Amino acid sequence: MKSKIFNVSLTRKKANLSYPIIVGDDLLSNGGEILKEFIYKKKIIVVHDSFFSIKSKHDNAFEKFIQSIKKLTTSVKLIDIPGGDHTKSIDQLNKIVEKVLENGIDRQSLIIAFGGGVVGDIAGFAASIVLRGINFIQVPTTLLSQVDSSVGGKTGINSKIGKNLIGSFHQPLAVLADINILKTLPEREFRAGFAEVIKYGLIKDLNFFNWLTQEYISIFNYDKNNLQTVITKSCQIKAEIIKNDEKEGAERALLNLGHTFAHAIESFGNYDGRIIHGEAVSIGICLAFKLSNKLNFCPIDDTQKVINFFQKSKLPTSLHDIKSLSISTSGMIEKFKFDKKNKQNELTFILNKKIGESFIKYNMDVNVLTKFLDEEI
Amino acid sequence: MKSKIFNVSLTRKKANLSYPIIVGDDLLSNGGEILKEFIYKKKIIVVHDSFFSIKSKHDNAFEKFIQSIKKLTTSVKLIDIPGGDHTKSIDQLNKIVEKVLENGIDRQSLIIAFGGGVVGDIAGFAASIVLRGINFIQVPTTLLSQVDSSVGGKTGINSKIGKNLIGSFHQPLAVLADINILKTLPEREFRAGFAEVIKYGLIKDLNFFNWLTQEYISIFNYDKNNLQTVITKSCQIKAEIIKNDEKEGAERALLNLGHTFAHAIESFGNYDGRIIHGEAVSIGICLAFKLSNKLNFCPIDDTQKVINFFQKSKLPTSLHDIKSLSISTSGMIEKFKFDKKNKQNELTFILNKKIGESFIKYNMDVNVLTKFLDEEI
Repeated sequence: MKSKIFNVSLTRKKANLSYPIIVGDDLLSNGGEILKEFIYKKKIIVVHDSFFSIKSKHDNAFEKFIQSIKKLTTSVKLIDIPGGDHTKSIDQLNKIVEKVLENGIDRQSLIIAFGGGVVGDIAGFAASIVLRGINFIQVPTTLLSQVDSSVGGKTGINSKIGKNLIGSFHQPLAVLADINILKTLPEREFRAGFAEVIKYGLIKDLNFFNWLTQEYISIFNYDKNNLQTVITKSCQIKAEIIKNDEKEGAERALLNLGHTFAHAIESFGNYDGRIIHGEAVSIGICLAFKLSNKLNFCPIDDTQKVINFFQKSKLPTSLHDIKSLSISTSGMIEKFKFDKKNKQNELTFILNKKIGESFIKYNMDVNVLTKFLDEEI
Repeated sequence: MKSKIFNVSLTRKKANLSYPIIVGDDLLSNGGEILKEFIYKKKIIVVHDSFFSIKSKHDNAFEKFIQSIKKLTTSVKLIDIPGGDHTKSIDQLNKIVEKVLENGIDRQSLIIAFGGGVVGDIAGFAASIVLRGINFIQVPTTLLSQVDSSVGGKTGINSKIGKNLIGSFHQPLAVLADINILKTLPEREFRAGFAEVIKYGLIKDLNFFNWLTQEYISIFNYDKNNLQTVITKSCQIKAEIIKNDEKEGAERALLNLGHTFAHAIESFGNYDGRIIHGEAVSIGICLAFKLSNKLNFCPIDDTQKVINFFQKSKLPTSLHDIKSLSISTSGMIEKFKFDKKNKQNELTFILNKKIGESFIKYNMDVNVLTKFLDEEI
């Protein structure tokens, strides 16, 4: 399979930033060579999910990747961190930062984040603050991180108040997305990542959504060509959206479709694995479409079509699907207040006019939301 | 006295950033009005040195400043933090960040850092990472912070390994430097700040250095016109240097004259007040000039003139002046290895060809340094 490479371009004031996303099959064993221009003779620190520790049964691709890097530089240190959202804490950040600094790094040194979204988020954030910022490369190993969190430069950790409230915008030098590594992923994680893929179609690409509804079974069976299309198309849509809005002025907020609900739902779950991010996003998007219909923005047929497809993808679509959490309307509304999209105490939501057309709804009426949630809970 | 306002301009790739530095007498009581364009109707969080807490005897200017802000916005929260370098820790950062987030801030909210360099560094860093970055304003209240740390956008905290190794580049919206508040400063702190003022002359302005040697007595007597000149001239020299080098490629490193020695010396003192930053810088600069002479870069007359002026300013000029610290050559060399200016394990120092002309010396020979320090300790 030929790797697909494309560039994310950002317009930062008048400066242009750009970095490659490389998507292909079995890239990791040759990772050093592919990333040569970035790592040759540098001090490299690989922050990786402990899932991939050398002795684990999943070590093959990881071990080959590390060996391929060691051919290009003599200084390679590994820092392993536990997966799971609890890892995105200030304590874990501090541990990583101190370990990175212990290596006597300089500003030419480089962090490689090897793992899912959690690893990419916290390792990228660490890269942005050691020595006031060094470069990093993303090697996402989950569908979720390959199609979403590894692209766009959002890094961060969770606060006591809510998810991702502490962090920075720090663009990677490159993103290396190996399709093959996705086989190490539990099916539940794969399906959860697929929720974010569906999201891209819903935001601004009806054709992509329709293609997904035709091909989803082969995708769940790891059809490599279709997976490559899924990843490149998702990243391209994301790159298109953030191109002119690196720091979330307006358009970038569309990527948050379903996420205001999702973040609130996740916080009720206390990030203990009862519900994972992509599942919360699935419910959140379905709620956004129901609310869009209720407010007469979106036809009922589209809302129903969306819910049906999430159900076919074996993802939860309603708050009733997660009975283990004690969710209350007032609790949800309280969580919404800490959403980063809000302006001057007014709630902001992403809603849809139809499949393939999301928009930003400012100043959402709390009474309307309360009534809506009372019916949903 | 007429306030002097000038702009710091930064060339970031092709984008231009610029912010005003306002220097004048008794600006704080009218601070709200002066900063109106930045704070009107915004949520404001003032992070301040607990030295200025409302009930302290020094509360007058601070209290007036807070009142002047409250005329322009209904949401003003105060967070007080202890002064001193120990405050620049990850624990304190976490406390500030969580308190800021508890206020339900949005991306239009603003942090005001009111205090010395420690407050500005940690509050600025907090501003750069809450919600992935909100704006902040510097209100420096010490000579050191008015002439140095409040300008240039370096923010950060200390790591276990060394000072300022964790942080970000985050430019303030504005800097408000009130000369009058300097009277709250202990004389020792004032003199320490003066070491950084002398530094600017030494780096690239012989005339400014000569003027300081003529006027220093009136400056120590708080002559307001001379103080305004001291602050504006220092900030202008710094702004000139960082204009084309916001993130410390090369020229900005000149501002580090004396600091490689100083950071090592300070770490021996464990930041417990036996030696404070400006005093360590004073010794560090004298060592840099002695080393410059020893390596035949700088004439002995200039080195002697520099040491004499620091002595007249009642600042320490030699490692023998700080007998309470157990400094060793090997310990110093070990500390140098973690300096951010180093490249590929080679030590970098700032040295001088004469008064008014600093340069970067890459690849400093460790044996030469060892011999030099053995003689100095």
